[in-house]
Amino acid sequence: MNLPTSFPDSDRSKVRRYPKRGSQERAAIYAILDAHILCHIAYVIEGQPYVTPTGYWREGDRLYWHGSSASRMLRKQAERIPVCLTVTHFDGLVLARSGFHHSVNYRSVMAFGQASPIEDPVEKRAAVEAYVERVYPGRNAEIRPIDEQELKATTVLGMTIEDASAKVRSGPPVDDEPDYALPVWAGVIPIRQVVDPPQADPRLAAGTPWPKKLAPYKAGARLDEVLSAIAKA
Amino acid sequence: MNLPTSFPDSDRSKVRRYPKRGSQERAAIYAILDAHILCHIAYVIEGQPYVTPTGYWREGDRLYWHGSSASRMLRKQAERIPVCLTVTHFDGLVLARSGFHHSVNYRSVMAFGQASPIEDPVEKRAAVEAYVERVYPGRNAEIRPIDEQELKATTVLGMTIEDASAKVRSGPPVDDEPDYALPVWAGVIPIRQVVDPPQADPRLAAGTPWPKKLAPYKAGARLDEVLSAIAKA
Repeated sequence: MNLPTSFPDSDRSKVRRYPKRGSQERAAIYAILDAHILCHIAYVIEGQPYVTPTGYWREGDRLYWHGSSASRMLRKQAERIPVCLTVTHFDGLVLARSGFHHSVNYRSVMAFGQASPIEDPVEKRAAVEAYVERVYPGRNAEIRPIDEQELKATTVLGMTIEDASAKVRSGPPVDDEPDYALPVWAGVIPIRQVVDPPQADPRLAAGTPWPKKLAPYKAGARLDEVLSAIAKA
Repeated sequence: MNLPTSFPDSDRSKVRRYPKRGSQERAAIYAILDAHILCHIAYVIEGQPYVTPTGYWREGDRLYWHGSSASRMLRKQAERIPVCLTVTHFDGLVLARSGFHHSVNYRSVMAFGQASPIEDPVEKRAAVEAYVERVYPGRNAEIRPIDEQELKATTVLGMTIEDASAKVRSGPPVDDEPDYALPVWAGVIPIRQVVDPPQADPRLAAGTPWPKKLAPYKAGARLDEVLSAIAKA
């Protein structure tokens, strides 16, 4: 399926503050989504907004997340209420010569739509396996497969992105012109999310090796780069 | 002011899934809040939920955030609509012997309340200076002070936490007992957010040193530990 290069204009996804930082291009939005697996989803129950952190994955214009079938959040979201799914990479602290121009560097996406449950058991099994594979290449072939009871106890939601926007800030501070002459340190303290050496379960069966296919998760690697590389492969 | 050790019970902040991971204790909630400065705030405009990443800071039971006075988000939130402010630390990927028991390690807080703007200019100036100081100790003394126009262009919102809960998962996977015998690698890939060496602005005034008081932001330091230490100091 050939999709347009950009998501449609909409009132809710329009980047209003610093519109130059915004984009509705699919490539920009996909790149940010594929570099993370933790999102924050906003939804409303009886007029009260909630925002819950949860894992997600993407296939084309579809976003998926899952959890316990007993989850109030998922049961409510499955009623096709409007949700907003936001992904944020926190890339740095930006120190300017005035408080006003201090900022942060980030890459974020806000995606809007309505979620619905994957009901068909075959499709549902494929979806949870796709999630495992998306994060851990080759892992489905190694682990004990999901059983019927576990599948029933799991709710998988899928949402077609109706509209979305990316917003990115990068680079040094932007100060008022006269302030550049001030003897104030200015610049960026970069922040990144990194992987530490794997910690084996104390109950690991003797002699079980670290899986070769998880080599991208090497100590010191950037999580966003590892996840982007897996998504591309 | 002596506050109770826990936030009150409430329907919206109750941890339903894995209640053992939950806590309404102020100490647990404050510790998670003080180890970050990026939150996700959910709010509703005309029935549509939004979740926006933004910086925040805490003083006692008050949470603050700020931005442009032209921001639609802030103008709407200033109308004392209900909001949910969530902070999440992503601590690790948890690999189990079945797909079902894969998980993530995290520390998160959901805080509920209604925001209102800090209108008094003296109080507002103090608030934005407190934010700068909270992240960058000693910095207000070095930078060019905020002027009247900048202060007017800034909206600062404050929210008293009405109720809140923390939720934490840590440690190895929890597998079904028979699965422990399987020759499947299981354990945790820890994730952390670290600080990289500061990048000076290319336009830095010649000879301007990196501020001594920013020593905690040394390359390789964990951001959560740096921020926690500053909050305690």
